[in-house]
Amino acid sequence: MNMHEPVTRASVAARDTSDPLGRFRDLFHLPDGLIYLDGNSLGPLPRRTVERMNRILEHEWGRMLIKGWTACEWIDAPARVGSKIARLIGAHADEVICADSTSVNVFKTLSAALALNPDRTVILSTPDNFPTDLYIAQGLIQQLGGRHELRMVDAADIEHHLDESVAVLTLTHVNYKTGRMYDMAHLTRRAHACGALTMWDLAHSAGAVPVDLNGTGVDFAVGCGYKYLNGGPGAPAFLYVARIWQDRFSQPLSGWMGHAAPFAFAPIYEPVPGVGRYLCGTPPILSMSALECGVDILLEADIQHIREKSLALTDLFIQLVETRCAGHGLDLATPREHAVRGSQVSFHHPAGYAIMQALIAADVIGDFRAPDIVRFGFAPLYTRYVDVWDAVERLAQIFETRAWERPEYAQRNKVT
Amino acid sequence: MNMHEPVTRASVAARDTSDPLGRFRDLFHLPDGLIYLDGNSLGPLPRRTVERMNRILEHEWGRMLIKGWTACEWIDAPARVGSKIARLIGAHADEVICADSTSVNVFKTLSAALALNPDRTVILSTPDNFPTDLYIAQGLIQQLGGRHELRMVDAADIEHHLDESVAVLTLTHVNYKTGRMYDMAHLTRRAHACGALTMWDLAHSAGAVPVDLNGTGVDFAVGCGYKYLNGGPGAPAFLYVARIWQDRFSQPLSGWMGHAAPFAFAPIYEPVPGVGRYLCGTPPILSMSALECGVDILLEADIQHIREKSLALTDLFIQLVETRCAGHGLDLATPREHAVRGSQVSFHHPAGYAIMQALIAADVIGDFRAPDIVRFGFAPLYTRYVDVWDAVERLAQIFETRAWERPEYAQRNKVT
Repeated sequence: MNMHEPVTRASVAARDTSDPLGRFRDLFHLPDGLIYLDGNSLGPLPRRTVERMNRILEHEWGRMLIKGWTACEWIDAPARVGSKIARLIGAHADEVICADSTSVNVFKTLSAALALNPDRTVILSTPDNFPTDLYIAQGLIQQLGGRHELRMVDAADIEHHLDESVAVLTLTHVNYKTGRMYDMAHLTRRAHACGALTMWDLAHSAGAVPVDLNGTGVDFAVGCGYKYLNGGPGAPAFLYVARIWQDRFSQPLSGWMGHAAPFAFAPIYEPVPGVGRYLCGTPPILSMSALECGVDILLEADIQHIREKSLALTDLFIQLVETRCAGHGLDLATPREHAVRGSQVSFHHPAGYAIMQALIAADVIGDFRAPDIVRFGFAPLYTRYVDVWDAVERLAQIFETRAWERPEYAQRNKVT
Repeated sequence: MNMHEPVTRASVAARDTSDPLGRFRDLFHLPDGLIYLDGNSLGPLPRRTVERMNRILEHEWGRMLIKGWTACEWIDAPARVGSKIARLIGAHADEVICADSTSVNVFKTLSAALALNPDRTVILSTPDNFPTDLYIAQGLIQQLGGRHELRMVDAADIEHHLDESVAVLTLTHVNYKTGRMYDMAHLTRRAHACGALTMWDLAHSAGAVPVDLNGTGVDFAVGCGYKYLNGGPGAPAFLYVARIWQDRFSQPLSGWMGHAAPFAFAPIYEPVPGVGRYLCGTPPILSMSALECGVDILLEADIQHIREKSLALTDLFIQLVETRCAGHGLDLATPREHAVRGSQVSFHHPAGYAIMQALIAADVIGDFRAPDIVRFGFAPLYTRYVDVWDAVERLAQIFETRAWERPEYAQRNKVT
């Protein structure tokens, strides 16, 4: 797109026609007329997931019953789905498993990082890290007797606080509120230079931006299955442990699925070699199978195409909002610089909650994050350029008609 | 049944005709000709689960997308399903949540028990407790610095070892191998008398035998969703915390779902009052919804009818096996006494693995547990008296024809 030509709906629609990812949209179930810009909270339903779930119910669970664990390879699902996710995040297939929730996996990996750096006491993070990561760090520290400390510092001060007290630096790669993306390579290098380990939360990056865990030397990572991986509500999460650390520690959630011989039913725990020891209990096969469908779709796409379209969509959204909604108090919270932008755009606005409610009523689904953020996720597999145009038109109309001032959009507790 | 009359297939079939639970069998998807005696490992597919999963995919996730968390009440699923399970185990609705795996829930509840009994150091259990419970205890003790000890003693010696060193007694109510059931009331009373807490694993009792957690004064319990609750492969587990203990401890897996205000996104963890603080990450809604279907069916049945039929089925099985298979080396591992029998029957046999393989080939599904146990679960909702008869006939034929000696049934690693 030539930035000097006027942008019109027709010129925007033309970009969809030549979009190399254009074919992917039809793989998803998206309600007519809805503009869904919340795939960073819950990705939409892939059509193939419906078929897969019917097959697993009627042909696998229904017919094979207990034999399904081997005959239908359920028992391999955590490693198999993990190895697929590994390809999205620059990891070896034997470094990633699918298991539990992100929160539980934060507990496992932070436990490992503290144990593997036993002379140090600080978990370094930021106060705007995703809260559950901070909560888990607090719970872990309390359980370990209070010898450790969660040190939360502003993002700009991280490097200043990387010193010989830091056992592990833990950050979410793309900030859930602002969409700002850290320089994973640089911060991992800096952490290592001071003897700290790293644990990255990829909730807002896996499937949305290129991630190269091996190339950047990351020690541990976790991530979410229900956002850009389109795994369904509460889909299982994933976990990465670099090969060098896998057999150096046995994590405390030492359930039978991580045992060297789970079906020997021996009374003493013996961890299996490799990342499998980070498994705990029996995996939820229905939810994990749904996640696998979402991951398979992403593996059919080129992550460079995803990144290029993500930046183009977010650039266009910023440009159109700042043109069409100028003077209405929206203040961009997301970096303009591509290198540090994830796949979302957020704006501050004092009436953010009401504005988002009005937008949702106009069939544009984003979300609100307290205290004043309106947030829009752009998932390149199913979001079109015309969706960006139409969303901004509806937003502009909400400002022009002052629709967001209606009493039904006033602040209340909100769950999503 | 008059024990003096000869038992025939016709007399057995007559019992099915008058079975007050007879109508439940049609609620399940059971392959024609298969005799499924492994519902204590994985319960069968309820027909309504297929409908429910289609609805949750196409109407909830597919159409409502992120709004499903509130509009479809996904966010309430852990408490809602937990409150339903509470009715099966004699607990208040606000004492049970559905969450995570059994293993993860063992970690939470044992963490609580040790913290709430801080002057004591022993977790008392048996070496034949289900292994993952023991493994988790070992992982927890290692994480706590080794100050605690897992003391495993024979079941007969438990009371002898209940002394002032014991922080918590943890047992599986019904033994997974033998089907022996502990006297929960007596052992809980004895544990309390010496100042110990109790944590009971209900994996093989919830939905199979009457459980009265409140009446017996149990402190903590966990249980499994994929056995007698028919929740599907790897269904989420559940967890019980007696009211008196709920607000006295904040468990270490302090994820955002247990926060007092999860959507305020505050950086400091503050546990919600009540059992909800035992939640951790985002729940797997597809798997949890499937579990809810299985639980709903159980709530439509009378647990006394379930218990009566369970004892009748297991009595009949023992009687027929000991008559029809006499002299073939089967040695009953399950108690004959009703008061201490769960809902399964196990036999020792040196060739147990091969015998079970031959039975499976004859469409009778039980399972094998090392070193020498053949195990048969009897789930009264869908197991008929004629199934017992036919299963024993097929077993007798395997002995008579020496079918189990075929090389294809020889020992190998087995997953289930």
